[in-house]
Amino acid sequence: MWNRNILVLGAGRSSAALIAYLLQQATQHAWKVTVGDVALKHAQAHVADHPNGEAIAFSIDDARAGSPAIAAADVVISLLPAHLHPEVGKLCLQNRKHLVTASYVSEEMKQFDAEARQLGLLFLNECGLDPGIDHMSAMQVLDRIKAEGGKTTSFESFTGGLIAPETDPENPWRYKFTWNPRNVVMAGQGTARFLQDGKYRYIPYQQLFTRTTPVVVPGYGAYEGYANRDSLKYLETYQLENIQTMIRGTLRNQGYCRAWNILVQLGCCDDSYIMEDIAAMTHREFMQSFLPADEPAEKLVVNLFSLEPDGEEMKRLAWSGLFSDEKIGLSKGSPARILEHILNKRWKLVPGDKDFIVMWHRFRYEQEGKSKCVEAWLTATGNNEVHTAMAKTVGLPLGIAAKLVLQNKLRAVGVTIPVTAEFYLPILEELRTFGIALQEREVER
Amino acid sequence: MWNRNILVLGAGRSSAALIAYLLQQATQHAWKVTVGDVALKHAQAHVADHPNGEAIAFSIDDARAGSPAIAAADVVISLLPAHLHPEVGKLCLQNRKHLVTASYVSEEMKQFDAEARQLGLLFLNECGLDPGIDHMSAMQVLDRIKAEGGKTTSFESFTGGLIAPETDPENPWRYKFTWNPRNVVMAGQGTARFLQDGKYRYIPYQQLFTRTTPVVVPGYGAYEGYANRDSLKYLETYQLENIQTMIRGTLRNQGYCRAWNILVQLGCCDDSYIMEDIAAMTHREFMQSFLPADEPAEKLVVNLFSLEPDGEEMKRLAWSGLFSDEKIGLSKGSPARILEHILNKRWKLVPGDKDFIVMWHRFRYEQEGKSKCVEAWLTATGNNEVHTAMAKTVGLPLGIAAKLVLQNKLRAVGVTIPVTAEFYLPILEELRTFGIALQEREVER
Repeated sequence: MWNRNILVLGAGRSSAALIAYLLQQATQHAWKVTVGDVALKHAQAHVADHPNGEAIAFSIDDARAGSPAIAAADVVISLLPAHLHPEVGKLCLQNRKHLVTASYVSEEMKQFDAEARQLGLLFLNECGLDPGIDHMSAMQVLDRIKAEGGKTTSFESFTGGLIAPETDPENPWRYKFTWNPRNVVMAGQGTARFLQDGKYRYIPYQQLFTRTTPVVVPGYGAYEGYANRDSLKYLETYQLENIQTMIRGTLRNQGYCRAWNILVQLGCCDDSYIMEDIAAMTHREFMQSFLPADEPAEKLVVNLFSLEPDGEEMKRLAWSGLFSDEKIGLSKGSPARILEHILNKRWKLVPGDKDFIVMWHRFRYEQEGKSKCVEAWLTATGNNEVHTAMAKTVGLPLGIAAKLVLQNKLRAVGVTIPVTAEFYLPILEELRTFGIALQEREVER
Repeated sequence: MWNRNILVLGAGRSSAALIAYLLQQATQHAWKVTVGDVALKHAQAHVADHPNGEAIAFSIDDARAGSPAIAAADVVISLLPAHLHPEVGKLCLQNRKHLVTASYVSEEMKQFDAEARQLGLLFLNECGLDPGIDHMSAMQVLDRIKAEGGKTTSFESFTGGLIAPETDPENPWRYKFTWNPRNVVMAGQGTARFLQDGKYRYIPYQQLFTRTTPVVVPGYGAYEGYANRDSLKYLETYQLENIQTMIRGTLRNQGYCRAWNILVQLGCCDDSYIMEDIAAMTHREFMQSFLPADEPAEKLVVNLFSLEPDGEEMKRLAWSGLFSDEKIGLSKGSPARILEHILNKRWKLVPGDKDFIVMWHRFRYEQEGKSKCVEAWLTATGNNEVHTAMAKTVGLPLGIAAKLVLQNKLRAVGVTIPVTAEFYLPILEELRTFGIALQEREVER
């Protein structure tokens, strides 16, 4: 009945745009879209009564014993948590299925490369927004510079999932959770490594949010970026071995990092131990645990970090309810888990909120003896608190990639990421039809 | 020929006092002392031609296949690195031998408890200085307070291995490596957890060296202490479940922590990744890797941390050679490994240096309706750069404990630490004959 079968694993926060896109493609091509989630109702909510869709209960634990859904699929798109992808990869190898994810390639995933190649399977990862569209849009410009005889000397790239300037005007962070909140709380742990002016540079977690890079996005104003952990790992992938500066990072609105740094410095983002006596604790008492004495937490924070009592940092912390006498409402947890829980009370999207994606690249290069500089940027605004720009910019590249697989338009096999033209040309082109497109300008150097 | 056999594993930095003590005891009791080290010559250096001693080559890898030395021993004292102690424990169980170490009880070590008990074996750990003498001297006072009807409300304890006030006058840190340098570089990583005024408190690594406790040791002056990671884990062992304040920490001379914090903040103590391009790097370039731009490292450090250019912090960093143009002399390493290597050039003991141990406890308690406070402290000075106070205060408790085992004076079996009177009474008493004894004073509260 159906020409091809697509299996989507995970029907959470970020799946709406992907599933809608696939169902629409499925109608055109007589494909079937199966959506599996541990919570069947999540899958059902997205599939509804679409004639090409089917919602199923799917758990990786059950799938280990054999999964008819995977066996019946032609391509598997996984939105499951990244740590499950080695298991999903194993199942795809066993069942000889192509796999598409938006997750970073892990060491375990790399191990599947040889066998996937041998079987002629594509295991495409890092094909969402960041990583994903960032790779594709950067490589498109980098390849063009090279084709025109240029030599790239510097590449800087920052992406952030923020809230739209026009919504949530009271929110001093200009930020809410539009992706995995845990990743936001844990962001930057470890040491950021990058290349600057020909030298390797390192910024540890304890300095990361004070050593930010100013970024101006034409038409959208000034932001700040903090370095990702992994800027060096793409030197080879991007074929930038002789570059002088290479930094990838995360974008936030101005002031975010100074305020967040207070939580970092206090140890509120630590996930390495379970706190004592949480059940009866209030938000304020949580903060007090990290402070030296029993004076009011606000006063201690102001003193410890030499802040203005009514300044921007304190406004942000207070707005997030961190000094409130509300009960936390957890019985146990690490500081990071508890902070996530507290923040989620104010930081989750509510009706009326729209999220906002900003991606910005800067390329410096030498061409015909001249130093040149190009900036490229993209923004995307969510429709509402469910159909977010994040879901769209993560989901659509995944969906388009899966379509290309089913249409046999890709020659790549093995474990890979979308850094070559066979990926970025068709995917960026189709994204443009959804209004997701980078703009460019040349800048005086 | 010999009544009993003692096997000492490890003949490194800290073994001199232990081996000398054991050989002297061996002469009295017709015991044999076998000293094993991977480097036979290290063992030979300590045993020399002592009639009761034997030096052997010993490696844990060889011992796995069967070790005549362990089979022949009555008690094994291990000075091997702590991570090898699970293996040593396993060998002692197989060969049914008692074991004495100065290492913290690991989770793996705990697993041996049931079997050791069943076999009637004592696996005594944490029987050096810190942990070791700190446990014993604290429990002696805590037990006395309890016996006299008192209720301890607060226990604070700090120990440090420093350099003697009279030696190395140029050294602004008043510190050198007298124990495992790696542990010094890695000190404090993770979050310090303790109890203060009835509340659990947490200090993360990034705050640890700025939130120090002032400690005055009568007759010796003012020091500063930073909290250990693990103050809570002895609440039960010390039977202090209802105490209001419990903090254990590490003692340093004043100013050490402010200067060390700069290295912490820059990320120089990170052991989680391997740095790039180390082979040709100088000390100064190492520092530069953690700084934001290519101006002179000194200037950047001064600006970043708002220091006085000629202040105490910069003096300490410069004295340690961190801004020198000397080659590091390593081909690869993590920041922590490289920092250790650089510091070791100035921070290792040289002829003329004497080390200096300071231990300080403060007990607050309620007795007959009165609030009372007792301080107890101990200092020990090394004879020279080889016969250190550290080697003496770590080695002698181990040696005395082994003697008590051989004389059948201990009833304890299983995996334990010296917190009961059968350990602390005889060990502290014999330590006193070596001039290692705590002094006490009552303090107005």
